[in-house]
Amino acid sequence: MKVIAFTGMPGSGKTEAVNVAKEMGIKVISMGDEVREEVKRRGLEINDENLGRIADEMRKKYGKDIWAKKCLEKIKGEEKIIVIDGIRNIEEVEAFKSKIKNFILVAIHASPSTRYHRMMKRRREDDSINIEDLKRREKRELSWGLGDVIAMADIVVTNEGSMEEFKEKIREILS
Amino acid sequence: MKVIAFTGMPGSGKTEAVNVAKEMGIKVISMGDEVREEVKRRGLEINDENLGRIADEMRKKYGKDIWAKKCLEKIKGEEKIIVIDGIRNIEEVEAFKSKIKNFILVAIHASPSTRYHRMMKRRREDDSINIEDLKRREKRELSWGLGDVIAMADIVVTNEGSMEEFKEKIREILS
Repeated sequence: MKVIAFTGMPGSGKTEAVNVAKEMGIKVISMGDEVREEVKRRGLEINDENLGRIADEMRKKYGKDIWAKKCLEKIKGEEKIIVIDGIRNIEEVEAFKSKIKNFILVAIHASPSTRYHRMMKRRREDDSINIEDLKRREKRELSWGLGDVIAMADIVVTNEGSMEEFKEKIREILS
Repeated sequence: MKVIAFTGMPGSGKTEAVNVAKEMGIKVISMGDEVREEVKRRGLEINDENLGRIADEMRKKYGKDIWAKKCLEKIKGEEKIIVIDGIRNIEEVEAFKSKIKNFILVAIHASPSTRYHRMMKRRREDDSINIEDLKRREKRELSWGLGDVIAMADIVVTNEGSMEEFKEKIREILS
């Protein structure tokens, strides 16, 4: 079994990479979904602030690798390939590496200006809407250790060109 | 004037990128040289431990952007292009961005296994020699904020193939 984890800064194209995996019929385990479930379970609104706060709170309470452990519970070893979405700190990487022999960390990269531009163009329920919000979110994710994860990636995929070009690169990695 | 800064984890190929710039006759300002000068000035031996300790000490005393400021003093605006070697934290990036309009941050990336393999094969006066030393050095550089710098790069250059292939990519960026 191979486990491929996608990571990247907000707006880098992580979600699109994960969508490629889904289109290919690959099982995707989303660390963000785990956080979303927890926020819902508490009867809170799904928004950027609550998602960030609960994710952080659980890490402080149960360890920095809590969301990785929750994902690992869902891996039964029946699939040939599984994609993990949303790794954010080195402790999560280590949790996966300690349990999964074939673990490959893939960082999606785009320049800050490309990412800001993209994020201003679209919205999602947990997306921020002005550039200062984006930079705050970025700083928060870096403070969790996202930069270290990107630096320690096995593969970096650049996403500066067209969407189709990017999807093709991801398909290549996954197949 | 354009200022291009190379950054990257130990063993990524940063030094080779800088050497390409030198071969092209581009002025290179090395943040590491600033640290080396300071270590020599204090009559200490040039080794990994002293370089790391003095770099860290000066950052604590004069601010995280002290080595960037020392480099900025050397930029007179006479050159068309200057290369900066050895950026390690986001505060240094911000110091350059605040003074230099055309500042481009280039991260060199190779996977951990490629980097460890390379570093075990070569030695330099400040290179470590066993894998545990390498990992300790890596952790120390990440603790300075190197991961955040890599995540915030404008361009990421992958260095997993041949040296000639890598040098060609760097030449392209610089010309």
